[in-house]
Amino acid sequence: MTETQLTDPLALAEALIARPSVTPVDAGAQDLLETWLTRLGFEVHRVTFGDVPNLYAQRGEGGHRLCFAGHTDVVPPGQMEAWTTPPFEPSVDGGMLRGRGASDMKGAIAAFIAAVAKTSDTPPLALLITGDEEGPGIDGTKKMLGWMQEQGYSFDHCLVGEPTSREVLGDMMKIGRRGSMNATVRVEGRQGHVAYPHRADNPLPAAARIASALTTLELDLGYESFQPSNLEVTGWGSAETAENVIPAEAWVRFNVRFNPNWTGETLLAHLDRVIGEAAGGAKWSWNPRVSGEAFLNDDPALAGLVARAVRTVTGRAPELSTSGGTSDARFIAKVAPCVEFGLSGATMHQVDEQVPVADVDKLADIYAEILRLYKEGLL
Amino acid sequence: MTETQLTDPLALAEALIARPSVTPVDAGAQDLLETWLTRLGFEVHRVTFGDVPNLYAQRGEGGHRLCFAGHTDVVPPGQMEAWTTPPFEPSVDGGMLRGRGASDMKGAIAAFIAAVAKTSDTPPLALLITGDEEGPGIDGTKKMLGWMQEQGYSFDHCLVGEPTSREVLGDMMKIGRRGSMNATVRVEGRQGHVAYPHRADNPLPAAARIASALTTLELDLGYESFQPSNLEVTGWGSAETAENVIPAEAWVRFNVRFNPNWTGETLLAHLDRVIGEAAGGAKWSWNPRVSGEAFLNDDPALAGLVARAVRTVTGRAPELSTSGGTSDARFIAKVAPCVEFGLSGATMHQVDEQVPVADVDKLADIYAEILRLYKEGLL
Ligand SMILES: [Zn+2]
Ligand SMILES: [Zn+2]
Repeated sequence: MTETQLTDPLALAEALIARPSVTPVDAGAQDLLETWLTRLGFEVHRVTFGDVPNLYAQRGEGGHRLCFAGHTDVVPPGQMEAWTTPPFEPSVDGGMLRGRGASDMKGAIAAFIAAVAKTSDTPPLALLITGDEEGPGIDGTKKMLGWMQEQGYSFDHCLVGEPTSREVLGDMMKIGRRGSMNATVRVEGRQGHVAYPHRADNPLPAAARIASALTTLELDLGYESFQPSNLEVTGWGSAETAENVIPAEAWVRFNVRFNPNWTGETLLAHLDRVIGEAAGGAKWSWNPRVSGEAFLNDDPALAGLVARAVRTVTGRAPELSTSGGTSDARFIAKVAPCVEFGLSGATMHQVDEQVPVADVDKLADIYAEILRLYKEGLL
Repeated sequence: MTETQLTDPLALAEALIARPSVTPVDAGAQDLLETWLTRLGFEVHRVTFGDVPNLYAQRGEGGHRLCFAGHTDVVPPGQMEAWTTPPFEPSVDGGMLRGRGASDMKGAIAAFIAAVAKTSDTPPLALLITGDEEGPGIDGTKKMLGWMQEQGYSFDHCLVGEPTSREVLGDMMKIGRRGSMNATVRVEGRQGHVAYPHRADNPLPAAARIASALTTLELDLGYESFQPSNLEVTGWGSAETAENVIPAEAWVRFNVRFNPNWTGETLLAHLDRVIGEAAGGAKWSWNPRVSGEAFLNDDPALAGLVARAVRTVTGRAPELSTSGGTSDARFIAKVAPCVEFGLSGATMHQVDEQVPVADVDKLADIYAEILRLYKEGLL
């Protein structure tokens, strides 16, 4: 691949898609990246934790360092025979680039490489790439941030290349994400026949009080640009019994998406009190798991810079959103201001994942414009 | 078997237990009964509905007719190897008669035959015996009562020989039973991801309101000798989904044991209103099934006569109860006053079902005393 080709985001994206890097397999995707970054003058570090390949690269000194963060891993292709063309054989068809990872997020990595390649004077840069964003997220970005601290590497701002656009490129960027907590509450009773309820201890009345308390709970009214925190009861069940038998156990399962009014810890303490009160004297237990804390990029300058670059290239003013699921930005936001901007996620994780070829080119232009504005010191 | 043997309830009970008449198989149990009743001067009718054998017999004319009702079928033996002796090989061991049906209710049938055999001057009698009391109860007593009406057979009072004693023979008789209704309420919603609850329609908040309304519902304060009607939620569930997915459906299952303040119909109408109000605007449906109406023997003379016979033989004043599950008395009570008295049900439906041999003898004495009092016209 020649220098010229490194400025062609479509060619780079196709090369990455051709590596079937389903979490945590790398399949040569990070080898490619290392080759490209080395040629662009980056110092490249390959760091493996557990079975997860990670890559950190940096170039340049003096002034603020901008980091691009992302992942080379992809979710499994799902029903292979449902794909129009094989998921790991990139194809361009009616102006669309199709293949697993086209949107999430090999297309964005390719766009960033191309942006660097075609920008003559970039600010100091870093790339933080993991092979475990779609997996458990234990041996990826989180551990890499620890490794960087040990090694004395750091950056000042971060741009995460996850797909954030909805319908068209540039209609949305993310400046924060809600946190997420899952839990199942179990109420224990004693089995018995419905004709003799005093000999049993039905767990369902207490479980019903808990379910009611959870479904009607108002956690807050929102936080800056965040919508109110929301609790959804996502299921319930009870020990299987014959129709005339009171079961020994009942449970209620729920998820909370919470804004920065809460941390996992304060939310857990609050819910523990709510559930305890609803349970009354009943014997209950739960297993809360916080899979991500809420975060908000509280550096308006970074969001403003990215939004400006998006508007310059696409003519659109992106919505500054905090909606949707979690991403590795939740880890990065703890060490530096962090925003997310990438391709449309309309087909991510689906069969026939695809993005317009024109969007991949435009994304490279947007990233290049971000490099230019950042270098100008517009922060 | 000689005339003398027909007055021996233990021998009769053993002969019946030796017929493995697990519902709806008869295995010769009703053949035995026909032989004995024919020898005692009864006119015997064998009537089969579906695959269920039934028997109606009567003897004597002039004055009130007393019917003895019961069943020759038994529940399956369960874990065969857990029995001390084979379930269909009656054994006497430490003063106990062991075998499937000893308590429920071949012992009682034997006691009634013996009571008739040893009573020189009985009132007009009837026996109404089914082979489907432990089964679906469709082709048994209910259809036999219709058949009797067609044939012009009738009786004035009924004694059901189900096991009603609790700890010791004579401590309890039943003068009514609560009705029973089962239902599952389903609430329909629309599946979706917890991060975008506005795009889904979570059925669980409405289902939780319904569960709460049902678990806290007070139906009444009781009825004469009946305890208050009681509703038990016996289970709930929801469509299976991943942890972060709102399910499309949730359900709540319950049973009501109701006293004569209610009929199945009035209860159904009331619950329909309660559930509808709790559901709010949610889409819901249910499938109420009334498996038995409540009934109370409102003829105190019959209960008094049976209680007196029990006291004469055992020295105990039986509690007049309306507790426990349903029995065929729910059908019979519609055509004649009906009480239930039989052996102890402590081991019924269990492995090693057994009753004291002395109780079988005493029950024959009690039934004989009932025949004597009834003949004397003490009603
Ligand atoms: Zn991603
Ligand atoms: Zn029975």
